[in-house]
Amino acid sequence: MLFGNAVIGQSGGPTAAINASLAGVIRGLFEAGCIGKIYGMRNGVEGLLQKRLIDLREAIKGEEDLLLLSHTPAAALGSCRKKLPEVESNDVVYKKLFSIFEEYGIRYFFYIGGNDSMDTVAKVSAYAEKVGYEMRVIGVPKTIDNDVVGTDHTPGYGSSAKFIATSMQEILRDCAVYTVPAVTVVEIMGRDAGWLTAASALPRLYANVAPDYVYLPERPFDFERLYEDIAEAFKRHPNVVIGVSEGIRFADGSYVGKAAHSGVRDVFGHSYLSGTGRVVERAIKDKFGCKTRTVELSILQRCASHIASETDLKEAQMVGRSAVEHAIAGETGKMMAFERVSDSPYEVKVISNDIKIIANRMRKVPDEFIAISGNNVTDECLRYIEPLILGEPKLEFVGGIPRHFSFI
Amino acid sequence: MLFGNAVIGQSGGPTAAINASLAGVIRGLFEAGCIGKIYGMRNGVEGLLQKRLIDLREAIKGEEDLLLLSHTPAAALGSCRKKLPEVESNDVVYKKLFSIFEEYGIRYFFYIGGNDSMDTVAKVSAYAEKVGYEMRVIGVPKTIDNDVVGTDHTPGYGSSAKFIATSMQEILRDCAVYTVPAVTVVEIMGRDAGWLTAASALPRLYANVAPDYVYLPERPFDFERLYEDIAEAFKRHPNVVIGVSEGIRFADGSYVGKAAHSGVRDVFGHSYLSGTGRVVERAIKDKFGCKTRTVELSILQRCASHIASETDLKEAQMVGRSAVEHAIAGETGKMMAFERVSDSPYEVKVISNDIKIIANRMRKVPDEFIAISGNNVTDECLRYIEPLILGEPKLEFVGGIPRHFSFI
Repeated sequence: MLFGNAVIGQSGGPTAAINASLAGVIRGLFEAGCIGKIYGMRNGVEGLLQKRLIDLREAIKGEEDLLLLSHTPAAALGSCRKKLPEVESNDVVYKKLFSIFEEYGIRYFFYIGGNDSMDTVAKVSAYAEKVGYEMRVIGVPKTIDNDVVGTDHTPGYGSSAKFIATSMQEILRDCAVYTVPAVTVVEIMGRDAGWLTAASALPRLYANVAPDYVYLPERPFDFERLYEDIAEAFKRHPNVVIGVSEGIRFADGSYVGKAAHSGVRDVFGHSYLSGTGRVVERAIKDKFGCKTRTVELSILQRCASHIASETDLKEAQMVGRSAVEHAIAGETGKMMAFERVSDSPYEVKVISNDIKIIANRMRKVPDEFIAISGNNVTDECLRYIEPLILGEPKLEFVGGIPRHFSFI
Repeated sequence: MLFGNAVIGQSGGPTAAINASLAGVIRGLFEAGCIGKIYGMRNGVEGLLQKRLIDLREAIKGEEDLLLLSHTPAAALGSCRKKLPEVESNDVVYKKLFSIFEEYGIRYFFYIGGNDSMDTVAKVSAYAEKVGYEMRVIGVPKTIDNDVVGTDHTPGYGSSAKFIATSMQEILRDCAVYTVPAVTVVEIMGRDAGWLTAASALPRLYANVAPDYVYLPERPFDFERLYEDIAEAFKRHPNVVIGVSEGIRFADGSYVGKAAHSGVRDVFGHSYLSGTGRVVERAIKDKFGCKTRTVELSILQRCASHIASETDLKEAQMVGRSAVEHAIAGETGKMMAFERVSDSPYEVKVISNDIKIIANRMRKVPDEFIAISGNNVTDECLRYIEPLILGEPKLEFVGGIPRHFSFI
């Protein structure tokens, strides 16, 4: 058994479940016998490099704090988008990092994040191996995008999907009240994978309303095809509602939203998209001359913890706790993952995968989840998503709004 | 006692509580001894003029349906934005309307809507009086805008305010995770009154986060002043968040969002605004060169019944039921209203006001609710709003999303 201190960080975009994973890791570490101090990095590896650490045994008073933390959106420790250099090319950063590990007696490193954060996990574990520093480095996946390979789904996705499905149903009710022909374009996050946009079709399963079409980045987008779809929908009713991924692209690979975005790229080279919905709306307005509107679900879809999925929050805690168990059992360079044992009744088990096969790769919506027409998702897809959004957390409200946890 | 049939309509923009008011009116009519048939107008007076009526005694099976209806957003009967002509100038429409009343034996007319809908109530009751048709015409206020005169507040406002305050807290958590200087502009509805934007400051009461500033249409907007505010906020923290009403105007009365909107006006002469947030965001980006983002709460703020205020839904039902009692007691040409008896403990009573003093007027946020600096609201304002957002309805979920009622 490896005795030592532990450090935990959060990285990448906020979600409604990343703090639940943090709570899970903390709970696991509280229960472990071989862990001394438990540090939280402020703003991920960026803060770690500046030794901005907090003592989580002091900051977390007990189960009440952990529950409240689980119900708090975004990243309570703060986040970053820092990309570490290649291990082979530049080791200034790694020398600094590992001198901090030595200084603080850190032997356990837990990093909660998405694809880009798994890149950090891969590099830290590779460097530890290279220099022979005994350490357990484990990645805990989170991303609303659900695009991490090697796992049935990612913590954070279920809560976003629940918000999106709930909001879409409400938008559909709202749009249905007038008799004037109108098209509402609902723009949904997901730069490269259509998992979130797919969730907007969930009302179809049980409600008597559904978006007319949903357009995923997995299929080339074509305006002529869109116009045919809209014309077809107008034959059915005056209030057309479509879900559109921010990441839809034309057949040549260029983003539909490219006209609207700034061209700025983040440190991982991803371009920032926004305005895809408005580009589509404008085209529809020009073509049909009808009333149009764009609803951007914006960052609400990643932080709306007031309508989080209880299944998601429970699983996020479970995967965090399992990360600790796997680390103590001697694993390193791994990412925790879900394997779906059964759809009905829904059952998953937590496993661990080699981080090297996961980092910097992406899981798209598979063909069998996309309608042959290319403008919707299959029922099979919705049956895959449904169990992930079930259940509502029992939130504590103060003054009419949910109570949140804060380290400050 | 006036025996006869009743008709109910919904009009204007959807809210999370307008169906609760409908449920209240229906419940009141079910209990009344002098009411025969109960008709629902599809799409307000527009549908009434086309005799698109449904039999609510058939369509509503009982208390379970009424509860579900109360938890369903938007207008279950459909809505319209039809403006009736002046009673004196043109009576073709009124002759048609009253021939329909006679044909269907309608002696009770309930209309649930905002300022514009109260105009319809005023005109129908005036025409009834003019032609000596014995009828009870009662308006039931609803509007998320909270800008109806003669009432402490309007049903629908509390639920919107709760969504806005809840979302703002979540946005604040989300924005706080990074260390890079950034300004997030949250655009909130309210063309002429800042009640909804004021609600975005509610986290200040109990959370340790709050928007840095909120800009209401009641105060002239000035870019230089905004830049000073933002510079000041950056001294406190890197993540600046402001709430901005879609209806903010410059000192000359022109809308800040005018550059971004289409110039289209609705039948009541109101211009459609959208893009105010982006105009402000762009100015901040140009001035500070920092990361910026606009979050438009869009129609979610009027239809997000999943986070409705239970106080609001209860009051909406109460005011609907009272409308029936007042009508049966012989009142007509009235709008139901709330009078606040006490702030703490919060207590309101339902009263009725003469519709003539209400229609086509507007209640703005009063001076004592706006900070002297003009860029925030006072605690007194927040204490006024707080009781309206308290409580959460016990929703029924199916497949992970709330179950809704539908007449179809």
